[in-house]
Amino acid sequence: MRPWRSAEIIAVGSELLTPHRLDTNSLFLTERLNDLGIDLRGKTVVGDRRADLADRLRAALARVDLVITTGGLGPTDDDVTREVVSEVLELPLSEEPRILEGIRVRFVQRGLDMPAINRRQAAVPRGAVVLPNVNGTAPGLLIEWQDRLVVLLPGPPAEMRPMMDHVDAFLRARLPAARIRRRILRVFDRTESHVEEIAQPIYSTWQDRDLPINTTILASSGVIELHLSARGEDVDALDRALDEAVKTLAAALAPAVVSVDGRNLEAIVGDALRGRGWRIAVAESCTAGLMLARLTEVPGSSAWVEGGIVAYANDVKIRQLGVPEAMLTTHGAVSEPVALAMASGVRQRLGTDVGVGITGIAGPAGGTPEKPVGTVVIAVTDGRREDVMTFRFQGDRQTIRARSVSAALDRLRRLLT
Amino acid sequence: MRPWRSAEIIAVGSELLTPHRLDTNSLFLTERLNDLGIDLRGKTVVGDRRADLADRLRAALARVDLVITTGGLGPTDDDVTREVVSEVLELPLSEEPRILEGIRVRFVQRGLDMPAINRRQAAVPRGAVVLPNVNGTAPGLLIEWQDRLVVLLPGPPAEMRPMMDHVDAFLRARLPAARIRRRILRVFDRTESHVEEIAQPIYSTWQDRDLPINTTILASSGVIELHLSARGEDVDALDRALDEAVKTLAAALAPAVVSVDGRNLEAIVGDALRGRGWRIAVAESCTAGLMLARLTEVPGSSAWVEGGIVAYANDVKIRQLGVPEAMLTTHGAVSEPVALAMASGVRQRLGTDVGVGITGIAGPAGGTPEKPVGTVVIAVTDGRREDVMTFRFQGDRQTIRARSVSAALDRLRRLLT
Repeated sequence: MRPWRSAEIIAVGSELLTPHRLDTNSLFLTERLNDLGIDLRGKTVVGDRRADLADRLRAALARVDLVITTGGLGPTDDDVTREVVSEVLELPLSEEPRILEGIRVRFVQRGLDMPAINRRQAAVPRGAVVLPNVNGTAPGLLIEWQDRLVVLLPGPPAEMRPMMDHVDAFLRARLPAARIRRRILRVFDRTESHVEEIAQPIYSTWQDRDLPINTTILASSGVIELHLSARGEDVDALDRALDEAVKTLAAALAPAVVSVDGRNLEAIVGDALRGRGWRIAVAESCTAGLMLARLTEVPGSSAWVEGGIVAYANDVKIRQLGVPEAMLTTHGAVSEPVALAMASGVRQRLGTDVGVGITGIAGPAGGTPEKPVGTVVIAVTDGRREDVMTFRFQGDRQTIRARSVSAALDRLRRLLT
Repeated sequence: MRPWRSAEIIAVGSELLTPHRLDTNSLFLTERLNDLGIDLRGKTVVGDRRADLADRLRAALARVDLVITTGGLGPTDDDVTREVVSEVLELPLSEEPRILEGIRVRFVQRGLDMPAINRRQAAVPRGAVVLPNVNGTAPGLLIEWQDRLVVLLPGPPAEMRPMMDHVDAFLRARLPAARIRRRILRVFDRTESHVEEIAQPIYSTWQDRDLPINTTILASSGVIELHLSARGEDVDALDRALDEAVKTLAAALAPAVVSVDGRNLEAIVGDALRGRGWRIAVAESCTAGLMLARLTEVPGSSAWVEGGIVAYANDVKIRQLGVPEAMLTTHGAVSEPVALAMASGVRQRLGTDVGVGITGIAGPAGGTPEKPVGTVVIAVTDGRREDVMTFRFQGDRQTIRARSVSAALDRLRRLLT
């Protein structure tokens, strides 16, 4: 068994040293490493200078067992990771015909010839394991070197993430049998501090038990997530301890608990709709399509999503959704009667079982003293029951739109379950 | 004049090595450093272990003129920055009575006694300049050391930011008046390697000029960005050199150049629509609202976005967009006639100047040998002209949907400009 226990991450790319870009890949990687019981000791961002990267790589190899680099695997001159790693580890590069063929085929499928410079991406340091790239040309590389492991991943998250599954499998096969099991409990409609106030006295006692449970709280788009994890060799014991812990927390936080099985709001709504054989239609104003985009992120969603109408302008609300013009004049576009009329309108026009209406002021302009930026009205109806609610969200335009979608999904969840 | 030209930033704190926290202070600091003509050569996140920080600090001092640390100045045991810096620079700490008094007063003002542990925050390495903290107890420190500069700032942004003004003033008084200026050029419908093949022979000559220009290439959602930057004292000369460089690149890469002024595709489309006083409507199938969501990310977009119809199910295409049922049977939902019928349909139904239709197979299921996953058809029309094109995108569901939106924005740009 290898002793890989500590890791560093090096993100490569001069653009990550500008005031406008952050390395976020390291968050995803940290989570995966922690899952394997590997501790992150440091992370570094370095530009495209060969000497700088070589320097950082040597220093990291002196400190930790596992070094992961992201970026710098592209075909261009400023993509230096492959060459620098080959140099520092003293493993000469040679061209791998199968990789070259794969890259060529990708270009041919797009009706293009492979540019000569892409040839560089088929270069592999001696003894490296090639990690296939499902979303791009640059393969990843995994190199065992003097009891250490060096992993080279591409920079774009869509390419890097699926590749980490291979690294994960490689490490799991070689690491001691300790497993980390996790549970995610999702809470909606409570602030992070409110959840912490209730949860902290409960979970703080879990760390000193025979089978310690780690708890992390995070917030995104208005949903609070409690991540529980435990590490050990006996999977059944881990699962029992975690299930018990989840039950205790869920009881303390009810009725704000959305799910205890990791499903997100859109998956819960999707399962509820599918269970009833129902279809849904959505009328969106301020969210302008984001609600439908999120509902259709769930694979198989065509079984329950019919479609919808984005009524950004009032004319669309009137003509496509049948919202009475007088209602808009009397109550304003951001009002409970209008949200309800939008929900019923889209349900009737598209002939679905459930309808949703979302109208609000996402900002930065358009607020009034009475209806400030962040005012959003959400209505849901199944023709028999109607539910409408006015929210005041805080944050910038993007945050307000994302929270509106989460809130609409939660209202749907309550209607359906 | 001092030769401070290059900098590194070290963020200290174990919490920054979890999957849930990012060091964002470095973005603010990078902007301030660039404004002073100082180039950021690298950034590092390190936990609260003394040896790790000492190691990173020594390495940084060997590479650059200016090292800025953030965090680790608090009163507790795991705040190690002050001690480690004193050790590495071999400058003994001594207690500064005026700082101690300041900290004591802060506590008294809140009706509290100063806890004994806060005494540590009054310790200052010999010769250091003390930077007052307007929003907390820990003062910052600025140390001139062997022609180098070491600056210690607190971690909380509200404390760190105002303190940077003092650092700024210190540096400005001693630095030549150099500035860094930037330009972004965006290219669509070309791979990164194709852009590099054309651009590299051009920009590679710029690095050896009297006024060198740095170029970085990056890709996101199908858009390729070229970032140009130049450094010097004469801002007008920098701007002239960059404008000339942008012109040369744009000419070589035309007609794929989307913008030379930093605007993204949605902003360009928005400006073009506003310029003509036109409004737009979108009919989306596989992207299910993402195109409208992206168009409405631009502030003020209600001036040109009317709305749209998300026709996820064929019934919506037929009834809400007027796509003939026979056309769906004959050609299939993912076909050029259907995309065109969707674009004209939504344009007519919503009474706008421009209509867009997007239909495709985002996967993971639904592909056929003839129309594999990633097949997306995009149509745009202004009633007089029609444009329709079939794409084969690669990647996962999310990537295919994002690229479809970028491609639709580019087709619109071509129709409008």
